[in-house]
Amino acid sequence: MPNEFDLIRRFFHGPTSHTDLGVGDDAALLRPRADMQLAVSSDMLVAGVHFFADAEPGLIGWKTAAVNISDMAAMGAQPRWITLALALPEVDETWIAAMARGFRDCCEAYCVDWIGGDTTRGPLNLCATVFGEVPREVAVRRDGARHGDDVWVSGWPGMAALGLGYLQGRVDLVGDWVEPCLDRLHRPIPRVALGIALRGTATAMMDVSDGLLGDLAHILERSGVGAMLEETILPLGTLLAACKRTELANAALLGGGDDYELLFCVPREKRGQIEALGRHLELPLHRIGRILDKSGLWMQRGDGVCEAVAAQGFDHFSGVN
Amino acid sequence: MPNEFDLIRRFFHGPTSHTDLGVGDDAALLRPRADMQLAVSSDMLVAGVHFFADAEPGLIGWKTAAVNISDMAAMGAQPRWITLALALPEVDETWIAAMARGFRDCCEAYCVDWIGGDTTRGPLNLCATVFGEVPREVAVRRDGARHGDDVWVSGWPGMAALGLGYLQGRVDLVGDWVEPCLDRLHRPIPRVALGIALRGTATAMMDVSDGLLGDLAHILERSGVGAMLEETILPLGTLLAACKRTELANAALLGGGDDYELLFCVPREKRGQIEALGRHLELPLHRIGRILDKSGLWMQRGDGVCEAVAAQGFDHFSGVN
Repeated sequence: MPNEFDLIRRFFHGPTSHTDLGVGDDAALLRPRADMQLAVSSDMLVAGVHFFADAEPGLIGWKTAAVNISDMAAMGAQPRWITLALALPEVDETWIAAMARGFRDCCEAYCVDWIGGDTTRGPLNLCATVFGEVPREVAVRRDGARHGDDVWVSGWPGMAALGLGYLQGRVDLVGDWVEPCLDRLHRPIPRVALGIALRGTATAMMDVSDGLLGDLAHILERSGVGAMLEETILPLGTLLAACKRTELANAALLGGGDDYELLFCVPREKRGQIEALGRHLELPLHRIGRILDKSGLWMQRGDGVCEAVAAQGFDHFSGVN
Repeated sequence: MPNEFDLIRRFFHGPTSHTDLGVGDDAALLRPRADMQLAVSSDMLVAGVHFFADAEPGLIGWKTAAVNISDMAAMGAQPRWITLALALPEVDETWIAAMARGFRDCCEAYCVDWIGGDTTRGPLNLCATVFGEVPREVAVRRDGARHGDDVWVSGWPGMAALGLGYLQGRVDLVGDWVEPCLDRLHRPIPRVALGIALRGTATAMMDVSDGLLGDLAHILERSGVGAMLEETILPLGTLLAACKRTELANAALLGGGDDYELLFCVPREKRGQIEALGRHLELPLHRIGRILDKSGLWMQRGDGVCEAVAAQGFDHFSGVN
């Protein structure tokens, strides 16, 4: 049987387009462009926590790359390089080849060079670290939201949560919507072009991985502000079409994670600019509320009543112990 | 109980000295210096494979940082930044605090900024990614060894293997040598100053993590050369003092891993320069053989006879399936 070095050589090696030295030495070598900041992020995906252990390996590979690349989008950075460290309970060449293919497909879709990694024996675990470039002083952080900003979200967050609920037998979906929801769960699309387009415009941004409300709470906390969501403009249309239940659609939108859409704040006077950007990118951009000068997270109902809402982020440790 | 975000905030946050934005956003932001190449390496450490699950968490933290930083030393790069992604089977604040302290201690010893990471639930797994800077064209790769080079190794590789054997009850050690051998196993010392000093001098270099012969075989393969080791000059002194058995000392030296000493090749005419460097760094540097113009790995015995030797690298997958 092949040893780990053969595995690395066979499945991890591949062409790179902007890397001086890739897989095979003690380290990869690359040259960030002058006057750029380097954005760096790591995400670890664990079998049974982030994906089903028996999920298609190609989808596991795609998702591992995608959730990392999404962190670059969320900073307004251009993703450029990625590493993958991998623990495997056993050597299954078919599995490794398919996983590596999915990982590489996602990298290639975003012009990201896969520059190295590690393989070892252990419970199934994939850890990627991604590096992106962003011109100095334009990275979009979480701490810049200000009173007078609108709050926006891209796409239809909540579809991945409906897909997960369907797989777990907890949710019924209209037949035509099963595949689209599972696709959002398994093959998230990092919003790189949107993130880059929002440089200099968005005051704060992050990707929705743990649930819209929970993630918005991070922006509010870091920015020292509050927010009022408007119930009547929440993007429930697709979710309602998929599950036909208002309460479920609401829960999926506000509490579901794993869609990797971008949540961002933009000064109100640039509302037209964001609407035009959505048309240009052919990506629905939904205004969902506004930043307040008082703290807290609030919902303005259709009847005008405002009530405090609890952040319902998905916490990987909730329920443990 | 705290959620994962609280954990990150409490234990992973800390001062940085050369980072624009550290833990807490979608990505960290840093500025590599102009005209530098960035060296990047990831290593994943798994409980039961790379360390005992019940090992002291501070030592696990130190080792995770050290083995990554060692990859920078092996390229002649100055380590500068590191991320840590962590899967934990349960939330044990005492464990996390001690592990983080050990990780940070190692980072601080090498002026490395801990800039971010990830925490999730899962079987115990630590994955670090380290970034270092090296002036363009001077990184020491594995592929430059040439006929006429001497082969060198730093320190006393094999001590970590003796320490591991002792813990596993397979090896008896002389009393005074137990602690030093365990220390090499648990608290490896990345040879950063040596790696940087060898820029422009060493033709090929790597760190010994999988065993001296196995790792030398990687250099030979990448460089397209062979090597002759000389039995009479192998650095067995400390190992013999520790275990008193020649055969065991030989096996530990040639097949043991986990010492993270540097293995490097230098043109023969610079032998005096390396000897002076060892004195300057107060680090024993041992010449162990020479690069050949024919392929293969050979041992010249004391009686002058040369025989082929098999690379005995430690393979994380060996024995599986």
